[in-house]
Parts: sequence; C-alpha cells; structure tokens
Amino acid sequence: MPVKLFGFWRSLAAYRVRIALNLKGIAREDVFINLLTGEQFSDAYKKINPQMVVPAFVDGDLTLTQSMAILEYLDEKHPTPPLLPADPEGRARVRSIALISVADTHPLVVPRIRRYIMQDMGHSEDELNVWLAHWQVSGLEALEAAVAGNPATGKFAHGDSVTMADLCIVPQFGAATMFGVDTAPYPTLKRIYDACVAMDEFAREHPSKQPDFPPQ
Amino acid sequence: MPVKLFGFWRSLAAYRVRIALNLKGIAREDVFINLLTGEQFSDAYKKINPQMVVPAFVDGDLTLTQSMAILEYLDEKHPTPPLLPADPEGRARVRSIALISVADTHPLVVPRIRRYIMQDMGHSEDELNVWLAHWQVSGLEALEAAVAGNPATGKFAHGDSVTMADLCIVPQFGAATMFGVDTAPYPTLKRIYDACVAMDEFAREHPSKQPDFPPQ
Repeated sequence: MPVKLFGFWRSLAAYRVRIALNLKGIAREDVFINLLTGEQFSDAYKKINPQMVVPAFVDGDLTLTQSMAILEYLDEKHPTPPLLPADPEGRARVRSIALISVADTHPLVVPRIRRYIMQDMGHSEDELNVWLAHWQVSGLEALEAAVAGNPATGKFAHGDSVTMADLCIVPQFGAATMFGVDTAPYPTLKRIYDACVAMDEFAREHPSKQPDFPPQ
Repeated sequence: MPVKLFGFWRSLAAYRVRIALNLKGIAREDVFINLLTGEQFSDAYKKINPQMVVPAFVDGDLTLTQSMAILEYLDEKHPTPPLLPADPEGRARVRSIALISVADTHPLVVPRIRRYIMQDMGHSEDELNVWLAHWQVSGLEALEAAVAGNPATGKFAHGDSVTMADLCIVPQFGAATMFGVDTAPYPTLKRIYDACVAMDEFAREHPSKQPDFPPQ
C-alpha cells in the first residue's frame, strides 16, 4: 500500500515532502485538502491532523505531521539518497538553512495568517500583499546570506548533493517568483533553484503541475 | 574554552538551547543581545548571525544559528542524555511536537513581528496584544492536542525522559503564563511544564532568572 500525503497544490510544506518522497523513490497517493475552501477544518481531516494544516503523512498505522519532522523521518527510514550530510557541522548548517524557511518565513504567509490579517484585523487584500511581500523578501535575504559566498555551498545549498536545505529553498523561492517578488538580488538562490528544478524529482512537483491546481 | 551563547532573557529560542546545554552538562558563556534596544542590528552581531536574531551558538570556529538545528547538533555531538527517542517513529513525534512551537507559534510573536505590526501596520499596543494572545492560544491548543490522551505521552511529552519536545513546550507555556493567557484548558501541558521546572536544568533558565532580565 502506498503512503498517503494530505496536501494542497499551494502548500510549500507539502511541496517539500513531495520532493523528498520522489528522491527516496517512494510511491504515494495524494489526497488534496483545499485550504481555500476550508476542507482542513472538516471533522474527518481534524482526526488526521488536529492542527488542521497540511501536510499529513500516513504510512499504515503511522500518521506524521510537520514537514520537517516528516523529512527527518524519511531520511532515517530510507537513508538513500541522504538528505543530510554525514558530519554534524554540515547537518547543522543544512538544518539551519532549512529552518530559515520552515520556522522564520513560511509561517508568516500561510492561509491562517492571511485569513487573520484580512478577516480579524480588517486589512485589505492590498495591505495583506504588502505583508506577504515583506516577509518573503526578508526570508530570501536571509537565505541568500546563508548560501552566498560560503565555501560549503556547492552546486546545491550544501555541497554538490541535494539536501533538506534545497527542499526548503525551492518551494520558498518558487513561491516568491509566483507572487512577483523581484528575485534578481538573490543570484545564489536562483542558481540553486535552477539546478534543482532541472531534476525531474523537483520539476514535477511544482504547484502548477499538481492535479488540484485550479484552471486559470 | 566554554561555548558561547548569544541570547536574550525573553527569547524562547535561546531558552530552549540553554536548557539543552544544562542537560548535556556543557558550560557556556552568555552574551546578551538586547532585542528591545536593537543590539541585534549592530554590525558586530550581524557578522555572527546575518539574520540578526538570537540565538547564535559559537563553539570555537563553528557558529550555528536556528535553535532547532542547534538542539539537533548538540544531541549528535553529545548523545548523553539523548534529547530524542531511539525509534524513528518516536523521533518524528517528538520533532513534530517541537515544531508546533518552533515553526507554527513562536515565529508569530517575535520582536520583528511585534515591531512590524505596530510600526509598519500602525496598530496599537492593545491590538498587538490581541494578535499575541490569539497565536499563543492557538499554539497551546495544538500542543495540548498533540500530548493529551496520547499513550506515547508519559511524565514528559514523550515517555518518561526529557526530549526536544519538552525543551520547546516549557518556554512556550511559560511565555503564555507570563503574558497572562489562561492555561486552565491545557492540563497536560501544565503537568509536563511542572515536571520539567522541578528539574534544576530547566528551573534556572527561566527568563526572570537571567542576568539581563530587567529590574521590575
């Protein structure tokens, strides 16, 4: 039985996990939870993830939430190819880069924040977009500073093999591009993004290629 | 030479690392970066952490940022006592609980967000407090749902040994208490918090016991 991934085309966190599953060669069944129509608040989904966010990863009796915990789990259970380098210093660097997106950037632009800013704080969509742009730019600046000119950076964010850092950079950078952020100030991220999306494991998981991506 | 920890009395992320260092028996030198007066924006600190946030952890030539990456690094370099259980499923559960605080709750209440909401969005301090209370409550609800009634929860968040999950729950729960959130709806968190702060490794790191805690 394939594993199940509860996700959504626009979710950056689900995107990270999709890439990891591809790199590990793990077949999955996608279950799409429409975060814009509120499907995450259904009683059925709340039983799977009481936090009512995606992704949730189900493998037999095991249900996991939080994308970074899922990535670490996949890397422990399916070590080849590794998503972390072998040395603790390198592993720390990779996790630190990943967390710039996971812990400092992405949480500020998710649906519940967008909803709160417009519905609870009464801001307009234009004002929300200023917020979204601000934190996306701030995240890209921090990510670029972490990789640019660092001798540990290679073809990818850490050396010449894909790591968890790339799995977090690609969705973040891609989202900024889709949102219209000027990415010219982040040439190292752009180079890493291009190297990643040249790989089919990344390319086929772009949000616009997901079955639940809305017709334009 | 002891390791150096750049932190701030009120930083929940630095608090996590302080507890970990105590549990591992690692002596540290504290360097306090006053986030309220903007010391994190100094050129000197920007060289240590270009993201201009705390904590930063310095061990000889190595500088690490992002509290969760630092916790994982400490656990890999100093495996006793472990901060993660031995089984991948348990490790995933612990990381997932930790990330509810690290990735979904704490990022919404940090100084740069407070500053942005008041200075850039023009909200009053009262309005900011509504935001802060909302996300703290939402975080505690998610954490309580993750531990309450789960057979894997023991004296601590996962079994009867301290894990990374407790290192994230304690600062989050403590901050909510200091902020005045009613914690009665979170009895499992309260029980875990009490079990943790009964240990000196936790108790002596309470924000109010830090040398840079302002005189009241």
